[in-house]
Amino acid sequence: MSSTRRTIGIGLAGLGRMGRIHADDLAGRCATGRLACVQDADPAVAREAGERYGVPWVSSFAELLAHDDVDAVAIATPTGTHAELTVQAARAGVDVFCEKPISLDRATTVATVEEVERSGIVFQVGFHRRFDPDWVAVAERIHAGELGDVALFRTSLRDMASPPAAFLAGSGGFFRDVTVHDLDVARWMVGEVVEVTAHGAAVSDPEAFAAIGDVDTAVVVLRFANGALGVIDNSRASGYGYECSTEIMGSRATARIDAPHRRNYEWRTPGAATTDLVKDFQERYPWAYAEELDAFARCVRDRTTPRVSGADALAAFDLAEAANLSWRSGRSVAVRYAGRGYELAGATV
Amino acid sequence: MSSTRRTIGIGLAGLGRMGRIHADDLAGRCATGRLACVQDADPAVAREAGERYGVPWVSSFAELLAHDDVDAVAIATPTGTHAELTVQAARAGVDVFCEKPISLDRATTVATVEEVERSGIVFQVGFHRRFDPDWVAVAERIHAGELGDVALFRTSLRDMASPPAAFLAGSGGFFRDVTVHDLDVARWMVGEVVEVTAHGAAVSDPEAFAAIGDVDTAVVVLRFANGALGVIDNSRASGYGYECSTEIMGSRATARIDAPHRRNYEWRTPGAATTDLVKDFQERYPWAYAEELDAFARCVRDRTTPRVSGADALAAFDLAEAANLSWRSGRSVAVRYAGRGYELAGATV
Amino acid sequence: MSSTRRTIGIGLAGLGRMGRIHADDLAGRCATGRLACVQDADPAVAREAGERYGVPWVSSFAELLAHDDVDAVAIATPTGTHAELTVQAARAGVDVFCEKPISLDRATTVATVEEVERSGIVFQVGFHRRFDPDWVAVAERIHAGELGDVALFRTSLRDMASPPAAFLAGSGGFFRDVTVHDLDVARWMVGEVVEVTAHGAAVSDPEAFAAIGDVDTAVVVLRFANGALGVIDNSRASGYGYECSTEIMGSRATARIDAPHRRNYEWRTPGAATTDLVKDFQERYPWAYAEELDAFARCVRDRTTPRVSGADALAAFDLAEAANLSWRSGRSVAVRYAGRGYELAGATV
Amino acid sequence: MSSTRRTIGIGLAGLGRMGRIHADDLAGRCATGRLACVQDADPAVAREAGERYGVPWVSSFAELLAHDDVDAVAIATPTGTHAELTVQAARAGVDVFCEKPISLDRATTVATVEEVERSGIVFQVGFHRRFDPDWVAVAERIHAGELGDVALFRTSLRDMASPPAAFLAGSGGFFRDVTVHDLDVARWMVGEVVEVTAHGAAVSDPEAFAAIGDVDTAVVVLRFANGALGVIDNSRASGYGYECSTEIMGSRATARIDAPHRRNYEWRTPGAATTDLVKDFQERYPWAYAEELDAFARCVRDRTTPRVSGADALAAFDLAEAANLSWRSGRSVAVRYAGRGYELAGATV
Repeated sequence: MSSTRRTIGIGLAGLGRMGRIHADDLAGRCATGRLACVQDADPAVAREAGERYGVPWVSSFAELLAHDDVDAVAIATPTGTHAELTVQAARAGVDVFCEKPISLDRATTVATVEEVERSGIVFQVGFHRRFDPDWVAVAERIHAGELGDVALFRTSLRDMASPPAAFLAGSGGFFRDVTVHDLDVARWMVGEVVEVTAHGAAVSDPEAFAAIGDVDTAVVVLRFANGALGVIDNSRASGYGYECSTEIMGSRATARIDAPHRRNYEWRTPGAATTDLVKDFQERYPWAYAEELDAFARCVRDRTTPRVSGADALAAFDLAEAANLSWRSGRSVAVRYAGRGYELAGATV
Repeated sequence: MSSTRRTIGIGLAGLGRMGRIHADDLAGRCATGRLACVQDADPAVAREAGERYGVPWVSSFAELLAHDDVDAVAIATPTGTHAELTVQAARAGVDVFCEKPISLDRATTVATVEEVERSGIVFQVGFHRRFDPDWVAVAERIHAGELGDVALFRTSLRDMASPPAAFLAGSGGFFRDVTVHDLDVARWMVGEVVEVTAHGAAVSDPEAFAAIGDVDTAVVVLRFANGALGVIDNSRASGYGYECSTEIMGSRATARIDAPHRRNYEWRTPGAATTDLVKDFQERYPWAYAEELDAFARCVRDRTTPRVSGADALAAFDLAEAANLSWRSGRSVAVRYAGRGYELAGATV
Repeated sequence: MSSTRRTIGIGLAGLGRMGRIHADDLAGRCATGRLACVQDADPAVAREAGERYGVPWVSSFAELLAHDDVDAVAIATPTGTHAELTVQAARAGVDVFCEKPISLDRATTVATVEEVERSGIVFQVGFHRRFDPDWVAVAERIHAGELGDVALFRTSLRDMASPPAAFLAGSGGFFRDVTVHDLDVARWMVGEVVEVTAHGAAVSDPEAFAAIGDVDTAVVVLRFANGALGVIDNSRASGYGYECSTEIMGSRATARIDAPHRRNYEWRTPGAATTDLVKDFQERYPWAYAEELDAFARCVRDRTTPRVSGADALAAFDLAEAANLSWRSGRSVAVRYAGRGYELAGATV
Repeated sequence: MSSTRRTIGIGLAGLGRMGRIHADDLAGRCATGRLACVQDADPAVAREAGERYGVPWVSSFAELLAHDDVDAVAIATPTGTHAELTVQAARAGVDVFCEKPISLDRATTVATVEEVERSGIVFQVGFHRRFDPDWVAVAERIHAGELGDVALFRTSLRDMASPPAAFLAGSGGFFRDVTVHDLDVARWMVGEVVEVTAHGAAVSDPEAFAAIGDVDTAVVVLRFANGALGVIDNSRASGYGYECSTEIMGSRATARIDAPHRRNYEWRTPGAATTDLVKDFQERYPWAYAEELDAFARCVRDRTTPRVSGADALAAFDLAEAANLSWRSGRSVAVRYAGRGYELAGATV
């Protein structure tokens, strides 16, 4: 065999739902990234995964960082540990892909981003939609000027049914957990935001959401620095399936990204044609999760800057905070992009 | 021939753009309504139309009301005359179909609605979407409970390009001219509204719209009495065509009404499939305008209540006012349905 | 009123299913054609229609031809009378729109076409698809060269369910009743045919079709003079709805005409999106039948040649005969276009 | 690591276009199958692939069969070697996945199938569409009876542009190279065939195809044992993209499988909406090729029978021969399924 190093060994930390998706992708669909070692706080879980994928396993993050075949790490551990592990890796000079959010606490988020920037490591946060072929194709055409000036941005993100109460309790709230994806896409596709106005409701299970002071449905209106308006609608419980669709109306063209059918066939009975709908994000995004890891691996290999940085994650975090503040206060929140994150006018909840 | 009176002779007042559409429909597509006489303040215009359709013509509204073959009138004159002509007809006991708006002035609108109600005439206002087969089919399923509780309502109404400046100047402003249609649909499909928040922007021609203190793009968020959220986006200048589409997400089902293609064929060239888009409301609504007149004629014939009343027109007017107030003040406007129209909290612009 | 004669008074003969559709269109949707008088062999039927549409009625075709307000006639009587009435009108110098087929007998068809041509009247046969906006738009692009050389033509025509046995018995058989429409479209869109191969089956009700020596399903392959292949599939009983769709693949582009949805909305339930399908030709063709009559009326008014002539009807008739012969003989039938109809090789069944 | 054998090491023979696709899939997307070793007659090609995928490489098929980590082989070598290598593997007791066709010669095909059956190895031939999720979903519903009795089967397979002349020369002709896929699908979805009628044309480059006695466009009509009709249309040069779509009309339902868009977005410009079309089989089938290998690997692991056997390959080969014979003779060819392949009536070309 050649001595040419062509792939990047990824050490995967955390083997919950997202960890398993990343493991499948690294073991399978990625071309540059490659599953090199798995780690989980639970040794049984780590061992089982190591055996399944035919790779070494360890039970501490320190061992993962130190493993010979690990060139970079992907962090998919519980949210509360993201910042600490990222800093640990940064100090060890190991490149990091980290699931979002970096932290539910702003100061921790800022400190982590600063530590990462000082360290010079390659750092990417898990906003997968920036790597989906549909969104990438449209974003490229927008950035190339084919759409002209954006006048209206509209996007929907809806889950089919609410997650378990335990997940909700630790989610950081609806805007930080769900809306944050659309806020990142809005910045990527249109540009910086100057005002956020959010409206929330709990309609699928009013009592349960009231009990935790959260909502399951939201409409968030954005005003962009370039004068365009944006609107996001989100739901925990669409009922019919998983929805992720985006429309951008510009002076030269309008792009409309819609969900594909789950299967490309129509079933016709008297007077009716029926198609399957995608039910969850894995069905909607067969490629985006693999591609975000592979793009990260290419950045590690080539020492280039990821498409979505720590600063981007902080900006989306701040806009989610603005939405949260707007919802709680019942008024619009003016925001100002400040290079590293947003300043919020009157940001006291 | 039988003596059975099976059709309703409609006297049409006003032969501008909408008047001509109504004349074509009454002369052609309507089954119960029938063009009986045409009137226009300009006798040459009236005569030309009379000759084209083979019906009598007159140049005063009084003559139209008095014409032997006229059972009811359709008013498509300039906006400023709607209220006065409606009252004149009501006092003469002649049933009225009136283009929206009744008036750009609330007091006049209220007075007209009250006069009409006192008179006992059949009175219908021109909210055509309530008669489009797509919206009717969905509304019937919603009202039959098939959709369950509404959680989210979303609708888009966009023209392809801005109308002439002269039209804009007399339009009553964006919310009263454009958004009002979606506000009526929102009430019809979901129910009464308790809060309106509007955002506007002028992006197609910022200077022209600034000069008249108006906008060409808006996002309006509604909160309904039943707890659901609603969002409307409107534009004077979509660029690609005429858009009118509505989505209603409920606990049992979600309905999505989308624009049809202009022609039912796809033109395929290397790597691309192209379809035609509808460019204006006439292409989008081949049936709705004829059906609203025919439904009115059936109400006249059967002495039943139209699907959209003067009170409905007033309610939509008030919600448009709330949107206008919200846009100008930068805050949400609480509203309360009061049987005849809405009360607006702090309604001082 | 002006003395300008702008519309053409049509005398309608026959008030069965197609007659009533034509009456509605002439009374309503047509702009140039206008229902002037109705005739039916059953005076009660004629009177009822006259009263419904508010036009004079007569019970003999001779009276219809002689009626003062009748400029041209539309013949929608039982098939067996088409040829005789057409000849009667031609001899009276009255222009004729005739439902297809002219006759189920070739000699009668030829004689009728010859008589009509001698008379110099405007004569159009009821191939409605040549007037549907979708097919017209595509045909115009093909004839303008935008599609390049045609390589493959594919078309489907399917009814939802078989008509009553009584209708089938007098239909002239599947190929002459159903396939003939696609054969006319094939000639119009691609050009003349040199070979016909037909396959038939009776699958919806094998015994019933065997009893009358007919089929309910067919695939007919065409070879065109320009080298292209064509394929037609037809069914009496699709089950799901009415299908009429056509694809033409050319060297520069491919056009695909598909059935529209019946309503422009999607109904979403868990994991499934459902749309309505059109169930019959009236739902599929809201415009084509009115437009064929209006186009005929314009030809009458302007003394121009209809888009589909007696010679076209004869050519389609002959191709249907070739299909019938091919099906019965189990071999391909070479055909040669001979100006007035086709010559069939070995045409002895 | 556990001693449980969970994956199947596949030795891949041949690294041309299909070989590379299989290598990518085995190295990436397959869960049970795993790229264990690569072989190519050209050592440089084998070495380059071995290095790229990080697996051992060999230059002779015998070495591949003997390799320690090879549980089964996938044969993607030039067509002329398929039969010989399959027999070699069968005699060595090594399971085989073989690209279609087994051979262009019937006697060789029969002998190979017989040898394979005697050996008891797992043997699967590369009809990938039987593993595409769209076709699998529909086939399962058909086989479960949800569609009822099939009345009509219609399928299109079209490449965007003709392959190089060198490929055509060795392809075995249009029917054996292209139509054979649809013939296999027809048998799988509907059942055995009793008559084949084929029509061919050379329209994209008449001279080039005439020179090799081949066609680039075909329509093949099938009559099934159950009475249903089927029609296949194929083209080497659709111009617009890669087409693979299938419709099956039954007594209880109709299924219509259509090509997905290449990207799930629509680009709207004034009056037009454009979507991307898939251009080749790799874009159309992101999953089918990986799944056919993984399904094979599962059969190897579990000692079960593949979904598509040597006998299936022989049957499709024979139907392609019948199509070829029909095209050359200009008449229908009666066929009779004989357990191992079809008997053709009057099968002398």
